[in-house]
Amino acid sequence: MTTPQKIDVALGARSYPILIGDGVARNAAHWAEWAGTRKLAIVTNTVVAPLYADALEQTLGDRQVLRIVLPDGEVHKTLDGVARIIDALVANRFGRDDLLIALGGGVVGDMTGFAAACYQRGMDFIQVPTTLLAQVDSSVGGKTGVNHPGGKNLIGAFHQPRAVFADTALLRTLPPRELRAGLAEVIKYGLICDAEFFAWLEAHADELLALQPAALAHAIRRSCEIKAEIVARDEHERGDRALLNLGHTFGHAIETATGYASWLHGEAVGAGLAMAARMSMHAGWMAEADVTRIERLLHAVGLRASAAPEVDAAAARAAMNLDKKVQRGRLRFILMRGIGRAFVTADWPPEALERTLVAQFG
Amino acid sequence: MTTPQKIDVALGARSYPILIGDGVARNAAHWAEWAGTRKLAIVTNTVVAPLYADALEQTLGDRQVLRIVLPDGEVHKTLDGVARIIDALVANRFGRDDLLIALGGGVVGDMTGFAAACYQRGMDFIQVPTTLLAQVDSSVGGKTGVNHPGGKNLIGAFHQPRAVFADTALLRTLPPRELRAGLAEVIKYGLICDAEFFAWLEAHADELLALQPAALAHAIRRSCEIKAEIVARDEHERGDRALLNLGHTFGHAIETATGYASWLHGEAVGAGLAMAARMSMHAGWMAEADVTRIERLLHAVGLRASAAPEVDAAAARAAMNLDKKVQRGRLRFILMRGIGRAFVTADWPPEALERTLVAQFG
Repeated sequence: MTTPQKIDVALGARSYPILIGDGVARNAAHWAEWAGTRKLAIVTNTVVAPLYADALEQTLGDRQVLRIVLPDGEVHKTLDGVARIIDALVANRFGRDDLLIALGGGVVGDMTGFAAACYQRGMDFIQVPTTLLAQVDSSVGGKTGVNHPGGKNLIGAFHQPRAVFADTALLRTLPPRELRAGLAEVIKYGLICDAEFFAWLEAHADELLALQPAALAHAIRRSCEIKAEIVARDEHERGDRALLNLGHTFGHAIETATGYASWLHGEAVGAGLAMAARMSMHAGWMAEADVTRIERLLHAVGLRASAAPEVDAAAARAAMNLDKKVQRGRLRFILMRGIGRAFVTADWPPEALERTLVAQFG
Repeated sequence: MTTPQKIDVALGARSYPILIGDGVARNAAHWAEWAGTRKLAIVTNTVVAPLYADALEQTLGDRQVLRIVLPDGEVHKTLDGVARIIDALVANRFGRDDLLIALGGGVVGDMTGFAAACYQRGMDFIQVPTTLLAQVDSSVGGKTGVNHPGGKNLIGAFHQPRAVFADTALLRTLPPRELRAGLAEVIKYGLICDAEFFAWLEAHADELLALQPAALAHAIRRSCEIKAEIVARDEHERGDRALLNLGHTFGHAIETATGYASWLHGEAVGAGLAMAARMSMHAGWMAEADVTRIERLLHAVGLRASAAPEVDAAAARAAMNLDKKVQRGRLRFILMRGIGRAFVTADWPPEALERTLVAQFG
């Protein structure tokens, strides 16, 4: 175990720390500090439980811990699934002063966080994200919730965790494809506001793919810092927080058009980043050299920069009309004036979107 | 229509007004001010819809309004019921900038508020409470939620309305039994912190029972003011807000022991107030003369002061162990040092509880 790094997400009374490093979730002292002696339930899934639940319970010591094991996969991220968590809490007489631990990826984190938000109108939870995506994205910022047949994350709450333990040791069992998908969100942070971090990623892509702990810790730390800064400025997504959706309008279109079956979320976001870059270029806001750098980095970490040939432009267009980002009839895009210079706009040239759709979709 | 009275619930960015008076919900100017031109859905139930939904839509003018009609009754206050509201919002492409209107009693308000809290992680809603109980209690303070087979209101959120229109004209169709149940909560506010208001209620009980608008408006106004003050001090129920549960520990025991079938919530709270008074007396904190005044006022408005013979002491005791107010093993009671002087304590003489249980339950 190395000394963990610590970031504070500054949200007044709801502030919380993110501990980052090799072994942070296996350190009993961290649990003593952040969980105290409270009654605990670990919420996890059928894939993660056999890998890490026993070890976590051991770290938590002698006390009795309830284990709630969910089925694996985004398809189970439903209101019914959250109802099952709540059923278990009621059956085991949990009170609002007790604590949930989310041990898993984004789905487990979103569902556990939403259950914590709703149970007795709000109880505490700690995130132990086991995927890179969850460590750099879904465990930071307090968005919790579930999907509805009519759309992703349509039901949810803003509910901040008490702490996040981002343990890079947990990534050793992560399938390589999911590691790459997580890197898409890491690249996104560089593109939003940190050209230097983007350049660092270009230089260290191989180390990240090889799970080198120090490189991972740096990438996670910088990603979380950027997300935390943006969330602190705009907790409830009324303004700047929309920047975090860079690549997501196109990404959601890919996911929707392919029925959330063949593309991982991060893979779709990766291609979405390239599309946002292309659209920015077509609008005259971004140099072609920057687009090339972005596409090159995506390829270097094993991600795609286009949705062709699976998704055609018509399907993408249809999917985007349903997107949450439709505000009073006008779609807002997050575009770039260069690497590290993302901005939100509802005022974009329609032909820039058209050219992107035609070129980037099959 | 008389000039409405207005109370401001001071909660920083979540502050909102309560308009009180005869006809406030039928005044198009109020809707223009608080709903603007947003897309609207009225959530109501099968009893209230035929009485008031058409009139409200007329007041709202020419625009298209979605109407969501729920089945009537506490038994339908479930997570599934909220899912049905959300289904309708998704099907009609509501966004988080649109607005829900809760037209009904506490059940409709709690479910609509919770749907608004969860839909796209939070949209606005306006309360139009149609029962006295909802006007003085459930529409103030932002508690929303649903029941679970394991307990009442176990699933929910704190979510403040944008405005509350407490229209006394809507109480003319209220069954007399529900009016009386609502008066239990009104009496509660006097007992918590306003002896003068309690004396006013003693003097004006007949006018309230006769639905005299000015008397109703005063009772609602003072009740809402007291609740608003307490909520503003402690929005998330970490301290003073527990005072609002005066009478509710015993009341919940009655409701639980009778399976939520024969007693209305307000009726149970009314008896619970008398029991809290008796327990306070047995603990040596309240004079018998005060207990007598409380029981006399309850009787004057047609409420009971005891749960005997339906609920026996053993059933009440069992029900109270499951109560949410169990904190780390010790039950907190809200008791009184006199009329208008309620306080929260975990340090009460066990024999005071025993004597109350034996005397007040059958």
